Amino acid sequence: MQLTSRFRIKNINNIIEFLSDVHVGRLATIDVNGYPQIIPMNFVHTVTDLNTKNFSLDYGKPTYRKDGKRENIDNDFKIVKNVSTKKTTLYEHVIYMHSHHRGEKIENFLRNQKVGFEVDKEICFLPSYYFHPTDASFADTLYTSIVIKGKASVVSDNQEKAFAMNKMMQKYQSEGKYAELNQDTKSIIHLTVIKINVDTIDGKYKIGQEWSDSFRKDIANKIIQREGITRAREILKDMKIIIQKNGELELPISVNLQL
Amino acid sequence: MQLTSRFRIKNINNIIEFLSDVHVGRLATIDVNGYPQIIPMNFVHTVTDLNTKNFSLDYGKPTYRKDGKRENIDNDFKIVKNVSTKKTTLYEHVIYMHSHHRGEKIENFLRNQKVGFEVDKEICFLPSYYFHPTDASFADTLYTSIVIKGKASVVSDNQEKAFAMNKMMQKYQSEGKYAELNQDTKSIIHLTVIKINVDTIDGKYKIGQEWSDSFRKDIANKIIQREGITRAREILKDMKIIIQKNGELELPISVNLQL
Repeated sequence: MQLTSRFRIKNINNIIEFLSDVHVGRLATIDVNGYPQIIPMNFVHTVTDLNTKNFSLDYGKPTYRKDGKRENIDNDFKIVKNVSTKKTTLYEHVIYMHSHHRGEKIENFLRNQKVGFEVDKEICFLPSYYFHPTDASFADTLYTSIVIKGKASVVSDNQEKAFAMNKMMQKYQSEGKYAELNQDTKSIIHLTVIKINVDTIDGKYKIGQEWSDSFRKDIANKIIQREGITRAREILKDMKIIIQKNGELELPISVNLQL
Repeated sequence: MQLTSRFRIKNINNIIEFLSDVHVGRLATIDVNGYPQIIPMNFVHTVTDLNTKNFSLDYGKPTYRKDGKRENIDNDFKIVKNVSTKKTTLYEHVIYMHSHHRGEKIENFLRNQKVGFEVDKEICFLPSYYFHPTDASFADTLYTSIVIKGKASVVSDNQEKAFAMNKMMQKYQSEGKYAELNQDTKSIIHLTVIKINVDTIDGKYKIGQEWSDSFRKDIANKIIQREGITRAREILKDMKIIIQKNGELELPISVNLQL
């Protein structure tokens, strides 16, 4: 991916956090006629220790230390430095999905295991007149997107299937109210779990980070006017701008705009 | 796509209406190493008359006749029957997108023009306990998705570029406040417009159409409880259930659940 550096998410932990927040990803496989087929999928991201092949590391959402700092995966995205033990471990990023046991996508990746996976969030459409009184070509969109490429397979190990499904349930049904699955649970044997072993991850974000403070404030006020205060509050949160109780806008210092 | 018939959107006009409502689509191209690359894109759907090659038919959103009935494109998705003139015309479905003039996706489809395109809407995650007290495998999701395959190219004709961009602006900036573009507008010459000539379109929807009326009512009440009334109102609207002023649920007759 050719990405202007200022729009690239440079810290892998911000990518992981985004993947743990967003509900829907899209899986692209290559069909029998050579066309990519894209379908929406619920998913969960995790990491596997490449030395021990231990997949149940429970590293879904970045964890926080007692001092409030985040345990960071190194920017070389396959290395995690464990802050508490000072050990360096080689990890592999993995995406798990639940699926019907038949279907075009499975036929496709059994034939050609190279797949694409993508997760995005549209933050806000910015009409052209925010930037120019008449020229339509100024219209723009703020968004975040994560573009993944990897190899897909069907998980055969029931222990790994149970782990993946429990991770899915933690993400989508955080209130509980289900029996934790294990390798002997009857339904686990019949479930189909798809796994992507990730080769590359690229994150892009456009939240107005290239604008001056005064311009960001100006656009923020225009967003409040066009979208209404309720919707604007969500949008500005993604732009890292806070609407204070008195209506004043609070802008972060620019270093906090770097993801 | 192997789709259970009851989940397939059978009327192409419902697909067109969905495409005209949803903001973000995803384009998959095949990269130099054979991996699909998926990226999010703003887009507009339209149709081209295959006989006259007239692309400016302005058939974005289905039009309605004076009697309130919709002008229908035939289920053979390339044929539109014009109700007023009783003429049958052969059309081609087209997706237009605006893009930077460089980037991996363009390099990809210039090498291999076969692309995938997808538009979806997650309606609601349904936790497992809606269906079973303990078995997590009952968790499900309601959604609509449109899966398109076709061939991508860069539009070179400035008149067609202006048409595509004006259609985009109508969709995303309906309040106007821009000068309509034409083939001589300076910015049109510098804009890059991507076009997909569509080979196949498949629509899938899961809104609980396979459930009995009483079960749909039961699930609807559970959704209100879990999601809160404001969010539930949106979800139930997509499930074609209306919350009346007295709080009672109004279910459509089952034929109206067929898309």
